[in-house]
Amino acid sequence: MSKIFVNIGLSLDGYMAPEGMTMDQPDYKNWGAKWGAMMAWLLKQQYFRETLQFGSGGETGPVNDMVRHTMERTGANIMGKKMFEQGEVAWPEEAPFHTPVYVLTHERREPWARPGGTTFYFVHDGPERALEQAQQSAGDRDIRISGGADVIQQYLNLGLVDELEIALAPVFFGGGRRLFENLRDPGPLFQIDRVLSTPEATHLRYVRA
Amino acid sequence: MSKIFVNIGLSLDGYMAPEGMTMDQPDYKNWGAKWGAMMAWLLKQQYFRETLQFGSGGETGPVNDMVRHTMERTGANIMGKKMFEQGEVAWPEEAPFHTPVYVLTHERREPWARPGGTTFYFVHDGPERALEQAQQSAGDRDIRISGGADVIQQYLNLGLVDELEIALAPVFFGGGRRLFENLRDPGPLFQIDRVLSTPEATHLRYVRA
Repeated sequence: MSKIFVNIGLSLDGYMAPEGMTMDQPDYKNWGAKWGAMMAWLLKQQYFRETLQFGSGGETGPVNDMVRHTMERTGANIMGKKMFEQGEVAWPEEAPFHTPVYVLTHERREPWARPGGTTFYFVHDGPERALEQAQQSAGDRDIRISGGADVIQQYLNLGLVDELEIALAPVFFGGGRRLFENLRDPGPLFQIDRVLSTPEATHLRYVRA
Repeated sequence: MSKIFVNIGLSLDGYMAPEGMTMDQPDYKNWGAKWGAMMAWLLKQQYFRETLQFGSGGETGPVNDMVRHTMERTGANIMGKKMFEQGEVAWPEEAPFHTPVYVLTHERREPWARPGGTTFYFVHDGPERALEQAQQSAGDRDIRISGGADVIQQYLNLGLVDELEIALAPVFFGGGRRLFENLRDPGPLFQIDRVLSTPEATHLRYVRA
């Protein structure tokens, strides 16, 4: 059966995105440099460079294998409205998902198909209904809760996240969108499954206890 | 020369202490169980059990060596007023520091010597002055910024922390005292020095870049 997973980069102080990270204010508090420092490990991976057509070369070790595995296992993505709206203007025409993407929104809108296998479906009746649709389209593959933080929090609070993968980078943002807040008490129960340590980031993998 | 270091346990959602953790409300939101889950790895270590007279036995592997090293390297501690006040009523008569402890406070108070080598000194002229005093008494040994979160933040913002050691436990508190907030922008620069992975906690060690 499909697993439901989160796979995100995180600053050491717990932020998924630095304060003011939007395309319309590119210089705000140096967010681009902060984001780049957090994701530097990913930009060096051969699979990622090839997939996003960033150029040839790159690392081919265990982190690269992990990045490939994350892409290949994913049969559907779920994301929030803000993440979609920022991506709508920033992603290339061939959006980088290559799966159905379920967007949580109150808006009613027809599905939007992009070249390369990404189709956005707009779901206005809640996270559980989005998950059902994602499960139907993912088949044997897994479902990624892509973000933003508020959407990940919703699925954590529903107790629906099977695997939580965090690339913890040694950078401080000092502000921004926190991954872990607004969680119910008691919170979800996870155990450590695996830690992959590199000089650029610590790749933490937790599974539901 | 003495290093200035932080060594703390942290919940996965970034808290040093669960909400309402005070001795006068022991049942508040189950804080005791949360704290215990975060620190379970430490209570199992042979050195810790012996030092705190919790009983014989315990683990003797690399985590135990790390705990011993942390205690043995420490020539002085610095802590905040709240941490001291909570400890004043909770620590055994032989307070568990065995070094001079510099307490940041506005109060003027004479030094308070405890059996076993712990003497509390009350410093009312700021964190830099407390550090100078700690450096004078620590000799070749190192200085631990013990907590709470606000004191650690002050020393991070002053750029004075050389080493940041975090035992990241796979537990969620859902609220409490966050370690990383109120940090200046740009924040302090650290790099990953070492990761020691165990089933109970991920021991992350960062050094100033």
